[in-house]
Amino acid sequence: MPTPPTFADVQAAAERIRGHAHRTPVLTSRRVDAEVGAQLFFKCENFQRMGAFKFRGAFNALSRLDEERRRAGVVTFSSGNHAQAIALAANILGIPATILMPHDAPESKVAATEGYGASVVRFDRYADDRDEMGRALAAEKGLTLVPPYDHPDVIAGQGTATMELIDEVGELDALFVCLGGGGLLSGAALAVRAMAPACRIVGVEPEAGDDGLRSFRSGRIVHIDTPQTIADGAQTQHLGELTFAIISRDVDDIVTASDAELVEAMRVFAATMKIVVEPTGCLAFAAVRRLAPELTGQRVGVLVSGGNVDLDRFAALIAG
Amino acid sequence: MPTPPTFADVQAAAERIRGHAHRTPVLTSRRVDAEVGAQLFFKCENFQRMGAFKFRGAFNALSRLDEERRRAGVVTFSSGNHAQAIALAANILGIPATILMPHDAPESKVAATEGYGASVVRFDRYADDRDEMGRALAAEKGLTLVPPYDHPDVIAGQGTATMELIDEVGELDALFVCLGGGGLLSGAALAVRAMAPACRIVGVEPEAGDDGLRSFRSGRIVHIDTPQTIADGAQTQHLGELTFAIISRDVDDIVTASDAELVEAMRVFAATMKIVVEPTGCLAFAAVRRLAPELTGQRVGVLVSGGNVDLDRFAALIAG
Repeated sequence: MPTPPTFADVQAAAERIRGHAHRTPVLTSRRVDAEVGAQLFFKCENFQRMGAFKFRGAFNALSRLDEERRRAGVVTFSSGNHAQAIALAANILGIPATILMPHDAPESKVAATEGYGASVVRFDRYADDRDEMGRALAAEKGLTLVPPYDHPDVIAGQGTATMELIDEVGELDALFVCLGGGGLLSGAALAVRAMAPACRIVGVEPEAGDDGLRSFRSGRIVHIDTPQTIADGAQTQHLGELTFAIISRDVDDIVTASDAELVEAMRVFAATMKIVVEPTGCLAFAAVRRLAPELTGQRVGVLVSGGNVDLDRFAALIAG
Repeated sequence: MPTPPTFADVQAAAERIRGHAHRTPVLTSRRVDAEVGAQLFFKCENFQRMGAFKFRGAFNALSRLDEERRRAGVVTFSSGNHAQAIALAANILGIPATILMPHDAPESKVAATEGYGASVVRFDRYADDRDEMGRALAAEKGLTLVPPYDHPDVIAGQGTATMELIDEVGELDALFVCLGGGGLLSGAALAVRAMAPACRIVGVEPEAGDDGLRSFRSGRIVHIDTPQTIADGAQTQHLGELTFAIISRDVDDIVTASDAELVEAMRVFAATMKIVVEPTGCLAFAAVRRLAPELTGQRVGVLVSGGNVDLDRFAALIAG
């Protein structure tokens, strides 16, 4: 295992992505605050470039490659947003990119990835081992593999979202972050521990895929089959070694949200806050809504991870 | 006709609404800019309190009432957003409010209006004369009638949205504003003429209800039947005397957008910019998309007027 990144790496990542990644807005809503009984600060990474926080880690990782590796190109695997993030970052930096995407990835994400000039290779989410395929492709063609979460530069890049949030709104009592492979959550934990040490940090994963919760409780990385959930960005089978190390040390709790709760959160986002959030991006808010009685009067950060959802699917989910 | 407001009234309104109305964000999108070929600045009043710019004018108007009028209460008629705006502003200022709403107003708007503590009286949009009903109710109960657009304080309040936009982004080559009764457009014109005199200002109304365009061209206020359009916030039958006077003097052009173009704009807002915009709020962007060849390379402001649309209706409109 490489050395886990530190908050200094998050700070360095913030310098590297400046002028390339958006400093996304923090939205608030009096109506939602009144309903939840707490003061909520939504860090809206659905307004990030390519529509999700993943651009931060991807750009940070690619911008650290030397000339030789840039010329050879990069490869990655992803359920969608990391793919677009690598494709866009590679496009900006002039690096050839190959992306392994699951056969059932949303068409909007495949099209966007190809639109950024990357080559897309499909795999079967339930049958193929994407890690194995990625490593084989990297070895065969001399490409650098940039995994979606278990990489120090990716984690450091994702941490910049929370760094910006705390920089803008100040101390928080709690921060809720969605959890798939753990890149966003571990990066957030680095920022929170350095900037707002009293803040509780809670990871939120889909009820159908609670490997993170079980890993957190058991002290070892639990592997599961690919979970069936509408939160396609969190359909991971296990945490990474690096993300697990940081999460075990720095995160206070992990909770889950059901698909029905994600849809309810998505509807509140659209109806009250007027924003489009993809199912995975609803995890943190869904948990906050369920745990509202425990959060009364608190200042609570909510990471909204992304907004990339096919319009037809979005329409079907929010229709009553 | 009362004296039309001036930019000084817009500035005074800005002071009055400070701390009550949101200073809404200005969003940009590289992808949309690339598609349109211009640099677009979206003033997002869908993030305004109660979900639309109307709160600005309503709060400005109500905050100018003396104690006696406040105690007696206010009445207004509205297709929706002005109703919620008056209801919320009245609630904040402790003023009783009665709202005349059309029988086919979106349920979300009726519920929100009642939720702010106002009394709602329904009328038939196609049969009743709402102006007459409003005046009768005001006379009978001693209420102050605050009309949705043809009022100096309402117009001045709406102008603060454009004042904030230009204050934030600087000079513009053009500004597109939706047009129903003309409150937002005439307020915008006051701000543009004072702050960015070289900026072209263009009003955009529904194709099915082009009374504004015909009034602008003929030099007199044209009355039409209530137009059938998905832009329910712009289903007005005529401009006001005050709004027409300002629009005739200060606006450069008026164009129209079809319902199909509004839906296309709504889909781009949701898919690319991740925001929920009601049909009326899509008018300005729809016109910008149609007129893109004439706007190449320009800095263009786009007023996004509101985001209050029932989720089921929104889902049906954006579904492919």
